[in-house]
Amino acid sequence: MDRTGVGSPGTVDLNCDLGESFGAYVIGDDEALLALVSSANVACGFHGGDPRVMATTVARAAARGVAVGAHPGFLDLAGFGRRAIAASPDEVRTDVLYQLGALGAFCRAEGVPLRHVKAHGALYTLAVNDLAISTAIAAAVRAYDPGLRFFAPPGTALARAAGEAGLPLVREGFADRAYEPDGTLVARRSPGALVTDPATAADRMLRLVTEGVVRAADGTDVPLAVDTICTHADTPGAVAIVATVRARLEAAGIEIRPPDGAG
Amino acid sequence: MDRTGVGSPGTVDLNCDLGESFGAYVIGDDEALLALVSSANVACGFHGGDPRVMATTVARAAARGVAVGAHPGFLDLAGFGRRAIAASPDEVRTDVLYQLGALGAFCRAEGVPLRHVKAHGALYTLAVNDLAISTAIAAAVRAYDPGLRFFAPPGTALARAAGEAGLPLVREGFADRAYEPDGTLVARRSPGALVTDPATAADRMLRLVTEGVVRAADGTDVPLAVDTICTHADTPGAVAIVATVRARLEAAGIEIRPPDGAG
Amino acid sequence: MDRTGVGSPGTVDLNCDLGESFGAYVIGDDEALLALVSSANVACGFHGGDPRVMATTVARAAARGVAVGAHPGFLDLAGFGRRAIAASPDEVRTDVLYQLGALGAFCRAEGVPLRHVKAHGALYTLAVNDLAISTAIAAAVRAYDPGLRFFAPPGTALARAAGEAGLPLVREGFADRAYEPDGTLVARRSPGALVTDPATAADRMLRLVTEGVVRAADGTDVPLAVDTICTHADTPGAVAIVATVRARLEAAGIEIRPPDGAG
Amino acid sequence: MDRTGVGSPGTVDLNCDLGESFGAYVIGDDEALLALVSSANVACGFHGGDPRVMATTVARAAARGVAVGAHPGFLDLAGFGRRAIAASPDEVRTDVLYQLGALGAFCRAEGVPLRHVKAHGALYTLAVNDLAISTAIAAAVRAYDPGLRFFAPPGTALARAAGEAGLPLVREGFADRAYEPDGTLVARRSPGALVTDPATAADRMLRLVTEGVVRAADGTDVPLAVDTICTHADTPGAVAIVATVRARLEAAGIEIRPPDGAG
Repeated sequence: MDRTGVGSPGTVDLNCDLGESFGAYVIGDDEALLALVSSANVACGFHGGDPRVMATTVARAAARGVAVGAHPGFLDLAGFGRRAIAASPDEVRTDVLYQLGALGAFCRAEGVPLRHVKAHGALYTLAVNDLAISTAIAAAVRAYDPGLRFFAPPGTALARAAGEAGLPLVREGFADRAYEPDGTLVARRSPGALVTDPATAADRMLRLVTEGVVRAADGTDVPLAVDTICTHADTPGAVAIVATVRARLEAAGIEIRPPDGAG
Repeated sequence: MDRTGVGSPGTVDLNCDLGESFGAYVIGDDEALLALVSSANVACGFHGGDPRVMATTVARAAARGVAVGAHPGFLDLAGFGRRAIAASPDEVRTDVLYQLGALGAFCRAEGVPLRHVKAHGALYTLAVNDLAISTAIAAAVRAYDPGLRFFAPPGTALARAAGEAGLPLVREGFADRAYEPDGTLVARRSPGALVTDPATAADRMLRLVTEGVVRAADGTDVPLAVDTICTHADTPGAVAIVATVRARLEAAGIEIRPPDGAG
Repeated sequence: MDRTGVGSPGTVDLNCDLGESFGAYVIGDDEALLALVSSANVACGFHGGDPRVMATTVARAAARGVAVGAHPGFLDLAGFGRRAIAASPDEVRTDVLYQLGALGAFCRAEGVPLRHVKAHGALYTLAVNDLAISTAIAAAVRAYDPGLRFFAPPGTALARAAGEAGLPLVREGFADRAYEPDGTLVARRSPGALVTDPATAADRMLRLVTEGVVRAADGTDVPLAVDTICTHADTPGAVAIVATVRARLEAAGIEIRPPDGAG
Repeated sequence: MDRTGVGSPGTVDLNCDLGESFGAYVIGDDEALLALVSSANVACGFHGGDPRVMATTVARAAARGVAVGAHPGFLDLAGFGRRAIAASPDEVRTDVLYQLGALGAFCRAEGVPLRHVKAHGALYTLAVNDLAISTAIAAAVRAYDPGLRFFAPPGTALARAAGEAGLPLVREGFADRAYEPDGTLVARRSPGALVTDPATAADRMLRLVTEGVVRAADGTDVPLAVDTICTHADTPGAVAIVATVRARLEAAGIEIRPPDGAG
C-alpha cells in the first residue's frame, strides 16, 4: 500500500521533463514550458542534458520559482534513455546517486534546493513494475536526501519502494496519456495511447483533480488520486496542452504549485 | 601571491589519485595505496572512475579514515584525461561542478565529508599556467563548497586562483618527480623527469618537509613549501615509493595526516 | 535447420576474444593468446577496444597469421557489453554494420582480410534465442560482406539467421563451459558452469572434435558438431586452457586453423 | 606546393556537412540541403551522427545522386567536435581510419562508393596549420582508399599532406565566410567573419569560380583556385545561401557536380 501523497487539497503540481538538450543539440521548448509548470524534472547527463544545459536549466527554473527535481535515466544518450538496460539493482542505485549529486551541485551553485526526483524513460517504466529496481532508486534517493519528494504513479512498485524507504510520495498522473481500466497507462505504441487535444486533456485533468476520477479507454471511470500531473515535453503540442490544463485548473480555483510534504 | 597553505607544522599530507578503474577495467593498486596515504583524490567518471568504482573507493577510504577529495578531469575516457581539450572557462567550470556533485553524493551516502579537490591530468597541467582555467575551477569549487581544500603547486596560476576565490590552499609537492631550478616540475617527457627510487624519493621528501628545500635537476637547492605530497599511482613502484616516503617521514617524527584549515 | 558448418575434417579452429583493452586500461593477455589461437575476435570500440587497440591487435594477429574477425557488441563500455539493451533490430543492424566497417578499415590498412564475425556478450546471448536480433546481425554482415564466416552455436536462432542470410556458418563450441543435455550451455551463474581445469577442458574438446560428442553436466553424452572452439579470455587460467586444448588436439593429429568456406 | 585540384573546367562541386543528428536530437535541414549540393560530408559518429543517422543519410544521398564523403572529427559529442583535443598524430590517424571504415560500411550496404573525405571542425582547423596532424589524416585516408578525394583549402598544410600522400586534392572555398588578403579565412569570432546574405555569397562564388578571385575583407582581390564550395549547414540561412549560389552558378553555365580525378 502506498503512503498517502504529499499534495495539498485544492492544489496540484504540474511537471515536465526539461533540460534534455545536449551540446549543440537543442530539444524541447524549455522556455515556454518553464512558464507553465510548477516542477521541472531536469535531465542529469545520462540520457540527455550536459553540465551547461543543467546550469542553464536550473538557473531558469530558479528565476521563475519552478521547483527543481532530478530526472535520472540510463546511461544511453544514443537511445535517449528509452531503452531498457539489464542493469543490476546496484548499478541502478549508484547511477542514480551519481546523477542526483551532479544535479544537486547546480542547485547548490544556484542557491535553490533540489526538491524532487523522477526517473526517466525506460528506467521509470522498468521501475513501475520491478520492485528490485524501484528499491534501488529509492535507496539512492534516501542516501542522498530523505526529504526529496519521490514521483511515482500510485499503486506501482515504484510508489511502494518510496513508501518502504520512508520517502515523501508524490503520486503522478498524465495529461497526455490514456488510461486502462486498472489505472495503468495504455501502452505507448497502442492506438489511442496519446491524448493530444488540449481541451480534452484539460477536461480530463480537471475531473481527475476535483473528483479523483479519470475516464479510461474503455469508457469506465477509474478512481485515481494524484498530486502532480505530467505532460511529456515531446508530445505533439505539449506547450498548448500544459497551457490549457493550467488555465482550466486555475479557472476552477485549483492552485498550481509544487507538492509540500516533509521527508 | 599565494595565501599560506593550510598544513600544520610537524605534519604533512600524503595524497594519491585513486578510483580510476572503470567497469570491467582495473587500474592502480588502490587497496595498497589507501593503506599508506592520508588523502585520496577520487576520479569522478570523466577521465576514469564510474559510479560503482566511486562508491567502492569512497567506502574503502572512509573505512581507513583517509580523507576523500574529488579528482575532476576532462571528459575523455579514451585519453584518460591526459589530453588538453580547448574547453572554454564556462565548460571547465560546469564540468568540474558536475563532477564535484557526483562524487559528493557518494560521500553523503557514506557519511563522510568531501574534503578537497585536485584537478586531474591535462586539466591540472593546463590550469597551472592558465589563470582563466584556474579561475573557472576555483569558481566551481567555491560554488559547491567554499570550505573544500584546494590542491595546487605553490606559485602557480592554480594557487593564485584558489587565493582569489578565498579557498583554503593546500600546496602540493611531488615525491616521484624531478624539479627545475624555478620550482616547476621537469617536463614528463624529459629524461630524468621521474624519481622512481623509493629511498631517493624519501630522502628528498624528508628534506622538503623538514627544511623546505628540494634539490633541483641541476643540483641547486630550491626553496619550496608544501602541505601535501603526491605520488602518482601509475609511476613504476608507486606503492614502494609511498611506503618508503611515509616510513622515512614518520621516523623523523612527522605526522601524516590530511591538511587542516577552515573554509 | 542449420546449414552445415564450413570447417574441414581433421581440422578445428580455436578462437578467443581479443583487443578489449581501452585507452589506459589493459585487459586480457592478448600476446599469449594470439600465439595459441587461429582466429581472433577483435573488439570494435562499442563494448571494449579503441582505434589504437584495434590497430595494434590487427597488426599483431596479422604478424602471427591469426585470422581476424569482428566482435561487435552493444554500445556499453560501462557494462563491457554484458548487459542486454532493449535495442530494436534496426538499431542492432546499424550498430553491427558500423562496427564491421570500423574494424574492416584496420584490416584494410594492415593488408589482411576481415574473415569472420562473432557477436559479443549480451548481444550474442540475446541473439542465440531471438531470431529478430539474429536476423538483424546477419543482415548487417551480409550487407558488409556475404563471405564473412558467421560464428554461432549450432541449433540456435543465431545459426538459423546465418543460414537464411546465406552466410557461411561456423559452428561454435566452448572449451571452458559446461553443457546441458540439450546442447545449450549451463547458465553462467549456475554452479559448475565453468570448466577451468585445462586437462579436463582438453579431454572434452578432443572428444568433441574427434567423436562429435560432449559430456553434459548430468553425465549424458550430447552429440554436437563444431567448427571452432572458443575459450573466453577472462576465464581463470584461459591461457593454460587454450594451450592444453591446442596441444592435446595437435597430439591427436588435428590441425588447428581458421575455418574455410566460400561465401 | 599543392598538386592541382581534381575539379574540371566549367564545373564546380557544392558540399555541405550533413548527417550530424544524433539519436533523438535533430540538427540541420538535411533534406533541403541534399536537394542542392553535389557532395555530402557525412558525420561518422564521433562529433555527431550515429549508425541510424549514417544509414539514413547515405541512403538519402544515394537516392539523389549526391556523392558521399566522410566527415571525421574528434571524439567529442559534447563539444560537437569544435574543441581542439591535444591528440597525437597516431591517435588522429587511427580515429580517422575508424571513422572512414564505419561510414564506408554504410556506403557498401547502400551500394554507393565512398567518394571523398573532409575533416570536421577543430580537426580541420587544426590540420590546416599543422602538418603532423594533416599527415596523420592523409595517412589514414591513403591506408583506407588512396582514391578518396581529399578536401582541403589550397595552400595549407592539409593540402600539402594530401599531395605528399598522393591523394587527389579537392581545393575548397567557402560561400559563407570572409577571406583575409592572404587567402585564409577571417577568424570565426571576428566581426564580419560570416557571409550570410545569399546574393552576396552568390556573387562572390560566381566570381571565384569564373575568375579565380575572391574579394578579401580589406577590399583587395585574392587569387584563389577552388574545386568545391562549402556552405556550413549551421550558418543562418544556409539553405537559402546554397540555393542562391547554385542558381547563380547554373545561370552562368557552370555545372554543379562532384569533383573527378582518379587516385
